[in-house]
Order: sequence, then structure tokens, then C-alpha cells
Amino acid sequence: MAKALKVGVAGLGTVGASLVRLLSVHGAKIAKNAGRAVEVSAVSARDKTRDRGVDLSAMTWFSDPVEMARSAKIDVFVELIGGDSGPAEDSVRAALARGVHVVTANKALLARHGVSLAGLAEANGVCLNYEAAVAGGIPIVKTMRETLAGNEVSRVYGILNGTCNYILTRMEAEGISFEDCLAEAQRLGYAEADPTFDIEGNDTAHKLAILTSLAFGTKISDDTIYIEGITSITTADIQAADELGYRIKLLGVAQRTDTGIEQRVHPTMVPKSSAIARIDGVLNAVAVDGDFVGEVVLVGPGAGGSATASSVAADIADIARGDRTPVLGAPAGELEDYIRARMRKHEGGYYIRLAVYDRPGAFAEIATCMATAGISLESIVQRRNGTPYDVQDAAPQPVILITHETTEEAVKAALEVILSKGVVADQPQMIRIENMN
Amino acid sequence: MAKALKVGVAGLGTVGASLVRLLSVHGAKIAKNAGRAVEVSAVSARDKTRDRGVDLSAMTWFSDPVEMARSAKIDVFVELIGGDSGPAEDSVRAALARGVHVVTANKALLARHGVSLAGLAEANGVCLNYEAAVAGGIPIVKTMRETLAGNEVSRVYGILNGTCNYILTRMEAEGISFEDCLAEAQRLGYAEADPTFDIEGNDTAHKLAILTSLAFGTKISDDTIYIEGITSITTADIQAADELGYRIKLLGVAQRTDTGIEQRVHPTMVPKSSAIARIDGVLNAVAVDGDFVGEVVLVGPGAGGSATASSVAADIADIARGDRTPVLGAPAGELEDYIRARMRKHEGGYYIRLAVYDRPGAFAEIATCMATAGISLESIVQRRNGTPYDVQDAAPQPVILITHETTEEAVKAALEVILSKGVVADQPQMIRIENMN
Repeated sequence: MAKALKVGVAGLGTVGASLVRLLSVHGAKIAKNAGRAVEVSAVSARDKTRDRGVDLSAMTWFSDPVEMARSAKIDVFVELIGGDSGPAEDSVRAALARGVHVVTANKALLARHGVSLAGLAEANGVCLNYEAAVAGGIPIVKTMRETLAGNEVSRVYGILNGTCNYILTRMEAEGISFEDCLAEAQRLGYAEADPTFDIEGNDTAHKLAILTSLAFGTKISDDTIYIEGITSITTADIQAADELGYRIKLLGVAQRTDTGIEQRVHPTMVPKSSAIARIDGVLNAVAVDGDFVGEVVLVGPGAGGSATASSVAADIADIARGDRTPVLGAPAGELEDYIRARMRKHEGGYYIRLAVYDRPGAFAEIATCMATAGISLESIVQRRNGTPYDVQDAAPQPVILITHETTEEAVKAALEVILSKGVVADQPQMIRIENMN
Repeated sequence: MAKALKVGVAGLGTVGASLVRLLSVHGAKIAKNAGRAVEVSAVSARDKTRDRGVDLSAMTWFSDPVEMARSAKIDVFVELIGGDSGPAEDSVRAALARGVHVVTANKALLARHGVSLAGLAEANGVCLNYEAAVAGGIPIVKTMRETLAGNEVSRVYGILNGTCNYILTRMEAEGISFEDCLAEAQRLGYAEADPTFDIEGNDTAHKLAILTSLAFGTKISDDTIYIEGITSITTADIQAADELGYRIKLLGVAQRTDTGIEQRVHPTMVPKSSAIARIDGVLNAVAVDGDFVGEVVLVGPGAGGSATASSVAADIADIARGDRTPVLGAPAGELEDYIRARMRKHEGGYYIRLAVYDRPGAFAEIATCMATAGISLESIVQRRNGTPYDVQDAAPQPVILITHETTEEAVKAALEVILSKGVVADQPQMIRIENMN
């Protein structure tokens, strides 16, 4: 058997500790199948004294991860520090530059520096593997880098953030508000004390940026993503979706169009019959449409120490076995420029919820605005707030429109006109509908 | 760039022709990403004159696949002939023996000769890849061989036969009988003229045999699988399942138990809330439970020329890239013996449908038999065939029992006693319930 593959682990939080445990529990299996033992020989973290439930006594301790990346006697540097710059970036660059393979779970780092890091890895003839960076335990990176080799991908989309999916699932199941769900998610540890990054869609956007590059062979472009979070979703929307045959999910979607590539993160109406509609709670799911394979959907845990460690271990085992795949599927030097499709050119169906003043002609005015903008309606749901139609009531009433396929700019223009007419009380709610098989 | 990888394709049916087309359409992408061009240089099929919609003029024609495997100037032999012996087996053995990589979609061949072929491949330092052999376009072989490297698998199960799933889905959606659905599936090309192999569960069993070896690192044992097909499923069962919160799917399940490994193929009650319950029509799905990753579910097309060709192309691209994975995950020489868990020791819940004679004490007798066998009941549904309770009616009435977790031998013993008492009109229907998260 070949010489043991020596691994240095930087960052000993939940994932790092799980990884050390995994390699001690399943080291023999990995060695047998990869033809080479894997051995954690160095670790780095801030606090040396903390009890992490794993035995670190045989490993060389580094208090500085960059120092470990530069000087430890290791074949693989595992970066579990986090952050898109600072020690995470410095240590990864240091390791790659000296010809040490890197495995990372750091989506922010890859979304920002993926192309440059890929170039550095390839120039030094080493791997940069990051299965854990997108959708935790789900093997979507391997699927896109390797399995879809013989496909042109037209779209990749998914539920990439467990916190948002947990909140939307609970809102639907219990009929409770976004705020109450968020508070509960925080109490249960499914949401951070500062949840902004998750609920505003930024975490999903980081993962999407990576998937887009893998899907289309383009350079990563993480600052051109259209992002809308889930904070504006109400129980009224979720109820209306249910009645109309949809569920609301926060999706990241990357899609090739005639004018370029769309990258968008937003609450989305998905048909109840679709596989993605059934993904509940903290689970993640990713769907890819390839021209030969059709649609493949992968479902699994998107986060958690053990599931993430499982993906990191698979990346290490690939290196031990000698598998060498270009970091972003295509070699870094051959990635094409990303050409952005403008969001206003987006085509699709739309769900629109309006609070319409209850006065004669209001609804006719709305219908006229939609028609003038060239938007045809698939369904209209008008419902009084519990008051029968013959009672005079000045309070605005909810009206829900589902459009046929149209463009974002047509919808926005129509809603602007409707607002200007003074027939609706609030800013309209608008949720995109995603077509699925 | 390295020298082109020369491929010989044996078998030019739907999959073979799709593969040739795929490699011509996406050859440039594969070459770029794998660092090596892939070139079909030889083909073999029975009928040279047939128009397959692809240009074969640049390829050397062999009328005998074994001759092609023995003598063509190729690096990879692609076997798309089918069958667990004859030319398929002979050509694969010939290719491996002379150090030519093999890619195959042939589940029957692998289920029967997988261990011996794996040994031959490994002895000759070449790959034997077979992603397309299990669940068509779904990357389950790669996921099990590579992604789950750092996991102990406790169970793998799935919907592995599109024909059966199509029939069960239609029976539920339309309320029509098994026979009518089968006839329709045949008319639409979803079922063979002789559908026995699919509907009796044998095709599922072949795929399961391979998954079992990958899951547990054991030798393939395809003649120890408990197999029940879907021919006994009635609309009454499907309706009862629906009312009780289940759907009926033909599953292949391999599971580690205290007494060995269970391999079983049978109609199964799956909770409606599970991901697997939502897999409709000809789709396939495979779920794997790993100790670190938790449950991962992969969904996609289980058959079809293009989807199957996509998997074959991925296997070829892996070879071009230089990826070398032991055929069955663990090296052939280190596969453990398969220890079979007896079906009668199987533990789980059961659905039982009885046709009970409508006479005083009949139901008490049944309840007593179950209690005597130590089986506790979770629910009992007794319903008259449209006749109100006060009408005297001698026709047997359906009674449905759902048991708590018990053993197969207890259920079988209880049903035998019930039959012997003469209180039921027909052979009881018994469908296993599978636990899912």
C-alpha cells in the first residue's frame, strides 16, 4: 500500500471535530478502498485547551493556520475556518502554492476567489475539492464536475439554505408568521442569532455562484446575482399558493437564456407535484437539467457537522485514490466569460397579490393595466376578508393574480401603473413561478 | 493534450446510438474537461446496414463483439449487448484480460459475474465502470463508490424499475386494475411484450444485488434475494394505502441487521410524507442511509437511450481523466462474504388485507390469532362493501390490519392459523411497511 496521505485540519469547530472523528472511525475502510491510509497529522484552531471530544494528542498543533499551510508536513490542507478572506484565503493560497492539495467547505471563499484559486491549484498540479461547500452532504459538486461530463446543462436550481426552508415549511404547516418561525428556528439552533445572511438569500447566492460556473463552464460571478430573501413572505401568500397548487420555496436558479445566464435567488412558486416541492425542513435539494440525462434531483442534509464532514472525507478519499478533476469542471484557463442576462428580461409566470380598495371599477382598472402591458392572466382569486359581498366595507381586499408566461419588465411596468392609479393600498407582492417537469 | 482515448462500442441499439451521438455532440467539452479527447474508433452490431441516425463511417466495423474486444485498437470497450452470459460476458472478459478498460450498462452480467469481473479488471489494472447498470441516469454507483467513502451504510433502497413504478402510479391515479395498466404500459412502450422480468421484480433484484455489494463491501449474492413482484396488488390495496397515509411502491431494499444482510424486493407501503413516495411514473430513485451523512436521495430517469448514454459517457470521461476506483468500492479480493439474514426474521410493520366471512365471532377470532402470535395492531379498518351494517349479507367483507413492528415469521404464522379457522375467504394480502425518516 502507498504511503499514508497526511492531512492537516484547520478549524476545529463542529465540522472539524466530526471530520477527525470520522477519519478515526472509518479510516480502515477509506484506506482499504482508496489503497492508501489517511492520517490527520496536524491541526490548527484558536483554543488549544477546549475539549472537542476527539483525541488530538498525536497531531502537531498550530495556532496559526497559515503557518500550518506553509510548513506542516502534510499532503492535504483542510480549510474549515470560514470567511472569504483573512486566514482562510491566506492559508488556502499558501497550501496550493507549495503544492499541497486543499479541501474546503468554504462557499464564501470559492464564490469570491474560486477562479483564481482554481488557477493556482492547477498551476501547482494539486486538487482543490469543495463538495461540502454546496448543499452539505449532497454530492452535487461531484455530480456536476464528473457525472454530467456528457451533457450541456440548461438549468440548475435548488433549495440551498436549510434555515429558509425550515422557516417556510413551518409557516405552511403551522400557519404562523415569518417572525414567529424565525424566533423558533433560532431557539432550535436552525438559525443564527444574526440570521440576515441566510434569510436575505446571500448564503444561497454564494452556493449558486459556484453551481453556475460548474453548470455552464463560466467564470464565477457572485456579484451579478439577483437576490431576494424570504422576509416579505406572509401566511397569506403561503395559503394562496396552497390553494393554487403551489408551494413557496427559496430557490437559487441558474439558467441559460438567449441573452446570457440568469442567476437569481428568490422565493419561488413551485408546483406541488414537483420533487422540489416535497423537500421539507432543513433538507436541501438540487436539480440539474442536462440535454442527455434529463432532470436529476439530489436530496439530503444541507448542513450539520457529520454530513459536512462526510463530504470533506469523500474529497480527501478522492485525493488518496488519485482522482484529479479540474476545480470548476473545465480547466480554470478555459472558463468562459460570464454573460449576464438582465433580470428584467426574465420570462416566466408570476403570482401577484394586491390589496385592492373596495370600490367600483377598481378591479377593472387593474385588469386593464395588465392587459395594456400585454400580460394575460391564468387565474384570478378575489376573496373578501370574511365579509360577505353585500356588506359595504372600505377596507382593501386581497386579489391574487397568476399570470401566463410574461417578462419581468412587463410585470414591473404594469404594477407601477396600478400603484399610480391609487387602487391598491400597499406595495404589491410578486412571487416568480418556476416551470418544472 | 494526451493522446485520444479510443473507444469501441459493442451494441448499437438505442443506448449505443445515443452514445455515439452524445460523443459527437459533446466531444469537445469532454476533451476540454478530461484533458483528453474521446474517439469512437470501432463499433460492433449484428446488422451493418441498419440506419441508426449516426455516422459510423469513420469507425472500424466488427460483426463479432468478442473479436472487437480481442483485437480492435481501443482503450475502452463499451458493452451494450446485454445478457448475463454469451457474447456480453465473453467480450467483457476478453477486453479486461488484455488490459482494455470496460464500461457496461449490463446489470444482469454484473449481478451474476460482478466479483469475478472485478477481480479480472483489478488484476489487469483497468477500470470496469457501470454507472448505467443501476438506475439509468442517476449517479448512484459513483455516489456509493466514491461519495460515501467515509460512511458505514446501514440501508440502501429504491425504486429501481420504471415499468413497475409507472403501473403503480397509474393504478393509483386512475383507479384502474393492474392488468389494464400493464396493457397501457405495453402500448406506450414502457413495458416489454413479455413483461415478466420487470413486473415480477427480477430486474429490480439485479440492480439491488449490485447496490448491496457497494453498500456493505460484500460479495454480490444475486440468488439469495427475496423477490415479490407487483402482480398481486389490487386497487383495493392502493385505496386502503391512500386512506392510511401510505403509497405502494415496488422497492428493492438492502439492509444490515443483527443476523446478516437482508436483500428484498417487494411491494412496499411507504409513508406519503417520504421523498420516495413522491416518485411517480417511470422515474427511479435511490436512498442511502450513511452513519455520517444521514439520508441522501437521488432521483432521475431510470432508463431511456439518452439518459443511459449520459451515464456511459460519464464512465468513459472518468477513464479519460484517469480516475481509478475499485470496481465494487472495495478491492475485489477484500470483499467480505455475504451473510444472509433470513426473511422470516425480518422486522417491520405489516399491512394485511383479509376477506372475512360476515358471521358472528369472525373478527374476534382474527384478533385473537394476532394477539396469540404476539402481534399488536396499530389500526384496523373494517368496511362493508357498500352494504349497511343492518343488512344480513353472507359475502366476505374486507378487513385491513396495520401491525406495529413485528417479525415476518409471526405474521406468517398468524395468517396460517387464521386461514385454518375458515374465517377468511381468500389468501390474505400482506404488504410490508418500510420505516422512513
